[in-house]
Amino acid sequence: MDPDSLSKAFVEHYYTTFDSNRLNLMGLYQESSMLSFEGEKIQGAQNISNKLNSLPFQQCKHNISTVDCQPSGPAGGMLVFVSGNLQLPGEEHALKFSQMFHLIPTAQGSFYVFNDIFRLNYA
Amino acid sequence: MDPDSLSKAFVEHYYTTFDSNRLNLMGLYQESSMLSFEGEKIQGAQNISNKLNSLPFQQCKHNISTVDCQPSGPAGGMLVFVSGNLQLPGEEHALKFSQMFHLIPTAQGSFYVFNDIFRLNYA
Repeated sequence: MDPDSLSKAFVEHYYTTFDSNRLNLMGLYQESSMLSFEGEKIQGAQNISNKLNSLPFQQCKHNISTVDCQPSGPAGGMLVFVSGNLQLPGEEHALKFSQMFHLIPTAQGSFYVFNDIFRLNYA
Repeated sequence: MDPDSLSKAFVEHYYTTFDSNRLNLMGLYQESSMLSFEGEKIQGAQNISNKLNSLPFQQCKHNISTVDCQPSGPAGGMLVFVSGNLQLPGEEHALKFSQMFHLIPTAQGSFYVFNDIFRLNYA
């Protein structure tokens, strides 16, 4: 699969999982993984999962506007940059967000999220 | 200098240079550098400089809202994620943007931009 298709498939998988079964996101991270969520720094799959599952909304829907990807170096890593909006229950207006992922290949031929930086884009 | 201070100093330097002497941005890139600008992929310092200097405005002012940084792996690289807005001459409203940089250490103890992804966040 070419990098653009791979990154789009990852993005679709990530946000579908986020919106339907958020607990399963933990499998995409490892102990070395880092999340910066609105400026808060969190490390490790369990801590990241705890953070994402403690957000103060149960239901949400991510709509993706753009996906960009670039190789991050010679080791097969990939940078994925996403813009989109997040619809929360009871909110009239969706929240715009940007997020980047640094995906690192695993020995099993898949990828895990090493870096994850999320920001809402306030109007 | 700690990574947060380093990334803020880089961001300040980058946008000050962009807004005051855009031709000098070329020195921050190398031949392997990649830019994705609104979905257009460009490679190499000269091509990236040509692109940035051919944008259809002469004057601009970047205002930074947030800067996040994370180490990109064991080799000393750094991911820098920026949100802000871009004021163009004659435009009443500033344009919101997000941008990420992957900085790689040079043999001279400085950094160059290996990855650069820029997106406007349309309202």
